[in-house]
Amino acid sequence: MNFSFSNSTRIEFGQGRIAKLASLIDADQKVLVVYGGGSIKKNGVYDQIKDALKDHSWLEFSGVEANPTVETLDKAVELARKEKVDYILAVGGGSVIDGCKYIAAATLYDGDGWDILTRKYTVARALPLGVVLTLPATGSESNGGSVVTKAATKEKLSFGSPLVLPRVAVLDPDVIKSLPERQVANGVVDAFVHICEQYLSHNSDAWVQDGYAEALLRNLVRLAEEFPQRDNDVWRNNLMWTANQALNGLIGAGVAQDWATHMIGHEITALYGVDHARTLAIVQPSLLRVQIADKRAKLEQMGRNVFNLPQDDNLAETTIEAIERLYSSLEIPIRLSHAGIEGDTAVPALVDALEKHGMTALGENRAITLDVSREILQRAA
Amino acid sequence: MNFSFSNSTRIEFGQGRIAKLASLIDADQKVLVVYGGGSIKKNGVYDQIKDALKDHSWLEFSGVEANPTVETLDKAVELARKEKVDYILAVGGGSVIDGCKYIAAATLYDGDGWDILTRKYTVARALPLGVVLTLPATGSESNGGSVVTKAATKEKLSFGSPLVLPRVAVLDPDVIKSLPERQVANGVVDAFVHICEQYLSHNSDAWVQDGYAEALLRNLVRLAEEFPQRDNDVWRNNLMWTANQALNGLIGAGVAQDWATHMIGHEITALYGVDHARTLAIVQPSLLRVQIADKRAKLEQMGRNVFNLPQDDNLAETTIEAIERLYSSLEIPIRLSHAGIEGDTAVPALVDALEKHGMTALGENRAITLDVSREILQRAA
Repeated sequence: MNFSFSNSTRIEFGQGRIAKLASLIDADQKVLVVYGGGSIKKNGVYDQIKDALKDHSWLEFSGVEANPTVETLDKAVELARKEKVDYILAVGGGSVIDGCKYIAAATLYDGDGWDILTRKYTVARALPLGVVLTLPATGSESNGGSVVTKAATKEKLSFGSPLVLPRVAVLDPDVIKSLPERQVANGVVDAFVHICEQYLSHNSDAWVQDGYAEALLRNLVRLAEEFPQRDNDVWRNNLMWTANQALNGLIGAGVAQDWATHMIGHEITALYGVDHARTLAIVQPSLLRVQIADKRAKLEQMGRNVFNLPQDDNLAETTIEAIERLYSSLEIPIRLSHAGIEGDTAVPALVDALEKHGMTALGENRAITLDVSREILQRAA
Repeated sequence: MNFSFSNSTRIEFGQGRIAKLASLIDADQKVLVVYGGGSIKKNGVYDQIKDALKDHSWLEFSGVEANPTVETLDKAVELARKEKVDYILAVGGGSVIDGCKYIAAATLYDGDGWDILTRKYTVARALPLGVVLTLPATGSESNGGSVVTKAATKEKLSFGSPLVLPRVAVLDPDVIKSLPERQVANGVVDAFVHICEQYLSHNSDAWVQDGYAEALLRNLVRLAEEFPQRDNDVWRNNLMWTANQALNGLIGAGVAQDWATHMIGHEITALYGVDHARTLAIVQPSLLRVQIADKRAKLEQMGRNVFNLPQDDNLAETTIEAIERLYSSLEIPIRLSHAGIEGDTAVPALVDALEKHGMTALGENRAITLDVSREILQRAA
């Protein structure tokens, strides 16, 4: 175990906490409020923000889409520059937050913002960023990672920088009340796979990280079991805090991480527009089966400590089946075909996309070559 | 669940990490290195610090005692002022770190530093503080709390401020190698009780906080079981990270906290000089028995999830007995008499001290009056 860890995002958790923004953003900062399709105007969030910022100078940019595109985000960058904005306030889920990380960095960069995603430019400056989370899933509200899509080329790439770590994140669980069922279910799965990416790797003898990961996974199993009865504060509170902890850096500090499921999943979203969480549920079980030799010990540990399964020779496979049952119970597809994608044409196209993006050695051991990705996708057909 | 949480301390965890201080403390800052009795000159830590600060201007102050006294610390304050120090580097365990928090705040306060402890002055400014942890136990390396003693009056009081939260904390588990067995055992117990103070309260339906607390408690049970074979990196890594997580604010966010064991324990240290951890092991079991009606549900949960005890009518009491066995296995006293203290004279003296310090309504429900404290101490005799 050898790591640096810090996470300075200030969390404001609880009902009515959006009002805190009044004092958490300096009074002299000009704020650009960025959001998506406008659901915040129906659920009361927009009005709460308007109230919190009543003594601030602020303007807004709306229309950030799911899987935010650089084409849309660059319009916000242009606005931020023209209006000399000091502070970006992201109001949304992972797409809006990730998009705002791009906006915060690209606004202060003279070149083409896409350079940030292609690694041609390393972020050296960024506007301060705050978040009002409207969809628990991403963890993006307290980490420095971001995924952005280029519509023109159907590319979905990621970047990370401590400079785009949100200064403050408001987590009011009441926002879950007005979410469509599909988005809430996606959130449970997204958080579950975030944890697995940092947990289902070789053993690092990191008892804190493993114990925390298992606690979060057990929470999500319970939240899924109680999904039909989810309209209560306890359910909402625990989903919101669990999803945050799943990807704030803590459970991944000093342990082997994988992220191959994410990299392959991103290509499915880029080419076929499938919801991010659903791509993960499609890829992960097959990936775990193909990588079972490397992941057997951790899968068995997960079986015992998360799903309460008995130890036997087949425990690793039984654990993968338990994961599949979890996703299926939330009506999340676990095969390409369930999402209406035809494997014979999709698999070669997805492998080509992975190759194009240099994703030729994925996973904790860099052992997932294009051939292995092909096998995973074929099994996931 | 309703809380603000942030913890910006940057953790540098692992062997050889002291060298990182070279870049983590600004080159133009004049550093006061503060330590205790000089064990750091024998175990190599002092030399590593000297090497890390070779391009900095720095001076040192040694002799901070266990249960640091304001009498000693005020000499460091005088030195820091005279030498116009910019940065305090604490090298030690809880006593040195807590002492340095006082130094950091008192140096920039014009009045009598003890005002910080009596709450006459609320900390408004403090020098930046860094930590090299030499004894895992306290959690003080990543929180804003501090306990300081006034030798003249045998008073042990606490204060807290986000302004004295360490900027950086170096956690190199190798420092454990040269520690006396008694200090390592104390550290296990100290961390265990820190967690209990935030966990053994009424149910807050906070699944993340409970799950994390239980993971940390299970780690400490395992570390105690493996105590005789503790000379290995895995044991040291996991003790150091577990003890940190026990008191960095995360497991206590949004849940009911108690801290009565600490308040009563502080009086035992102040009057009789018993090691901090040992006072906790003496007070806690009796306190739990006296408060068993309020704490039954959480004690039962702890029995099931930490000690793997079967559910029955007696589970709360069985859990308290398991806690006692844990402490005894580390040769930690669990009664005043084990520490050579005679109850008949000590109990009234301790109750008087609690009264003097306004500790008349302790615990999660403020229900531990002086009479209840007397009963707890009598049972602990």
